[in-house]
Amino acid sequence: MIEDMMTQHVSAVREFLASGQLERLSHYLTRLHPADVAEILAELDEPQDRLSVFRLLHDELAGEVLSELEPDIAHDLMGRMAPERVADILEEISTDDAAELLEDLPSSVREELITLMEPEEAADVRELLAYPEESAGRIMTQEVVRLRRRWTVEETLDYLRRLDNGAETIYYLYVVDDENHLVGVVPLRTLVTSPPDATIGQIMTPNVISVRVDDDQEYVAELVSKYNFLAVPVVDEENHLVGIVTVDDIVDVLEEEATEDIHRLGGSEPLDMPYFATTVPSIIRKRIGWLLLLFVGGTLTGSVIRHFAGIADQFAALNIFVPLLIGTGGNAGSQTVATIIRALALGEIRFREVFRVMSREATIGLSIGLVLGAIGFWRAILWHTGPHIALVVALSLPFITIWASLIGALIPIAANRLGIDPAVISGPLIATLVDATGLTIYFTIATLVLL
Amino acid sequence: MIEDMMTQHVSAVREFLASGQLERLSHYLTRLHPADVAEILAELDEPQDRLSVFRLLHDELAGEVLSELEPDIAHDLMGRMAPERVADILEEISTDDAAELLEDLPSSVREELITLMEPEEAADVRELLAYPEESAGRIMTQEVVRLRRRWTVEETLDYLRRLDNGAETIYYLYVVDDENHLVGVVPLRTLVTSPPDATIGQIMTPNVISVRVDDDQEYVAELVSKYNFLAVPVVDEENHLVGIVTVDDIVDVLEEEATEDIHRLGGSEPLDMPYFATTVPSIIRKRIGWLLLLFVGGTLTGSVIRHFAGIADQFAALNIFVPLLIGTGGNAGSQTVATIIRALALGEIRFREVFRVMSREATIGLSIGLVLGAIGFWRAILWHTGPHIALVVALSLPFITIWASLIGALIPIAANRLGIDPAVISGPLIATLVDATGLTIYFTIATLVLL
Repeated sequence: MIEDMMTQHVSAVREFLASGQLERLSHYLTRLHPADVAEILAELDEPQDRLSVFRLLHDELAGEVLSELEPDIAHDLMGRMAPERVADILEEISTDDAAELLEDLPSSVREELITLMEPEEAADVRELLAYPEESAGRIMTQEVVRLRRRWTVEETLDYLRRLDNGAETIYYLYVVDDENHLVGVVPLRTLVTSPPDATIGQIMTPNVISVRVDDDQEYVAELVSKYNFLAVPVVDEENHLVGIVTVDDIVDVLEEEATEDIHRLGGSEPLDMPYFATTVPSIIRKRIGWLLLLFVGGTLTGSVIRHFAGIADQFAALNIFVPLLIGTGGNAGSQTVATIIRALALGEIRFREVFRVMSREATIGLSIGLVLGAIGFWRAILWHTGPHIALVVALSLPFITIWASLIGALIPIAANRLGIDPAVISGPLIATLVDATGLTIYFTIATLVLL
Repeated sequence: MIEDMMTQHVSAVREFLASGQLERLSHYLTRLHPADVAEILAELDEPQDRLSVFRLLHDELAGEVLSELEPDIAHDLMGRMAPERVADILEEISTDDAAELLEDLPSSVREELITLMEPEEAADVRELLAYPEESAGRIMTQEVVRLRRRWTVEETLDYLRRLDNGAETIYYLYVVDDENHLVGVVPLRTLVTSPPDATIGQIMTPNVISVRVDDDQEYVAELVSKYNFLAVPVVDEENHLVGIVTVDDIVDVLEEEATEDIHRLGGSEPLDMPYFATTVPSIIRKRIGWLLLLFVGGTLTGSVIRHFAGIADQFAALNIFVPLLIGTGGNAGSQTVATIIRALALGEIRFREVFRVMSREATIGLSIGLVLGAIGFWRAILWHTGPHIALVVALSLPFITIWASLIGALIPIAANRLGIDPAVISGPLIATLVDATGLTIYFTIATLVLL
């Protein structure tokens, strides 16, 4: 397995370092995949050790390793080296990776590094950084192979042989006219299996599906996932070919978006960086906003209890069940909201199906509530609360679970309809909303049954 | 945008159907991408309409459409057609897609269809279905191009031209010896840019990274994502090349795994199928297990309240804050658990870093608790509970948030260490665990301050 191999690599590197065999270490590293070298660097705890290893890499490998590293480690290494060397390294990698490494740096450092790069590369990087965050323009690479309709298959194959390896992918070859308008695509596979004298115009697929440079990365991911693309071309508003987004970038986007949704579902703003790369004050900032809002919302439950103080004083046993009932409401709502948010993200539910969702959730809430109600009844009897309070608990549970399931489904669907990312509707938000209403249901039923 | 185009397609298809222009409809559909035809079919609400449209497709397109459809719609269509036609269609698609369509069918139907397929295809499908669910063997395709070391580049290109389009991807070409052992890989890109008289043995990369046929699909996804592969070869225990997993399958795996994690985080067992494709009783079964467990766990809070009944009777105002305090504990725990589960899934946290995580979470919990404690103090004063109860609330909050953050971090890390998927540790589970302990903290502080 890969993990065992990695453990071996790390201890080999540690030994070379300890014994000062830097030349042998350098040879050892050249044989590894850049992703593995990045993982080894991450395993070395001492920044100074990392730097010693990183310095041994030639520019191209160093660049690839840098783009595979966690942002905090990459930035730390970049800060410890001469800006001229960093600029040389950045020139070796594709412009989208360079832009990603530069985007979170302080603007003065970023400017210095870009200025030290070759003018052409620098201009490309500047262009990428000008696009909005999380847009197709930000994740595309500008290095794309452009073919012309009149070329033959043989000429094209010759052309590809003469190309240096700058283009990130040549598995889709895009065809442009004299003004760089995108007019077609030729999969490399088609090129290879076509007669040598056929022209690109004959074998290309016209009507290429493309994305706009300002399209959201999530939309691009959806498209690539739907059509099983390996890459999708990016055009500007006049259909000029400006770049290409490859499927490996999409894999990263999917992981990033899933991370965002999971953090939001837990009730916190998503961390933009890995856990340890995010500072403690920054995590506090991401969490405290929602917690404050929920805390203020939660004080509503206090008002409900104060409102029903009369009956609660008269039947003190009612208080015993308060945490259990609102906890169950929160749990049922949390289950529903997770299911619905994911179904919305995958496009499984549309707004016009809202009533179908509601009726399903009501049925689910009722069934679950009846089962829990029966158990709650016997728990109350065993606590000697008497049959009346047991009945109040048993009756309240189905109402609370139905209500929680409905709220857990309705609010994300409504948010989605209003153009708000439904993932901001978290489990804790639904739980807090259900708390006060669940208590109201419970004490109202208690009033009806007991008084 | 794609959505507008889809709306146009759907209304065009509806019109052709309504006016009975089936031949024109058939032509119209042939021009579309299979994924678009699948989306159109899903938009048609009447199963009979779907069937009329689906029947117009030629076998190959029908097969591709079937593999793009939601499982419930695909199975419904398969059930409405003659088994012979279904078998013909299944022969046209890659064996992994055929296996996926067949796996959830009742075994008698599945057997009937497989028996009707060509013997060779049938054997391949049976082989795939014999591998465990969610294994590499289950998502791989067996159609893979095999090269020999002695072939020249020119011979190989000729060979590729003569191949029919059976192989799902030819972007990586695998090299095997006479016993079908995997010995190397040649990216199509390398092949195309190499001199025609070079041999495969000269240009291939030996030491191919491969996965075992019984490896978990999540491991395969991690590998493809780490190394930015377009495909990875699958071998058996003797290193025989048996198939290939392509990146588009990995995109599906990533979406599936994110869905599982999100459902679990919400506190329910993951649904295996899209929301509407899952029946209501099946959703109830997925949700009720955890709810029951949490309900029983939740009755602990009742025991805690009964235990502290003395002080709660004496100071009735204490009850007002019970839902607020346990709600806040649940929310803080839920935030932490979401962050930690995701960090574990992405490999950002390792077991040996557990103390570093704990100290970070304690700091975060303390900071948040102090802010909320200050607000809680003033809320209590405004409710005229008197300064002593306000003090109890203010003191309890930091302890509860620290405790919730620690529990929310520790339990998923421990589960991961024990080989349990940390995603089963849900927000509701942490909330329930924190409820009873949070109450104990609150009433203990109350006893110390008030008595």
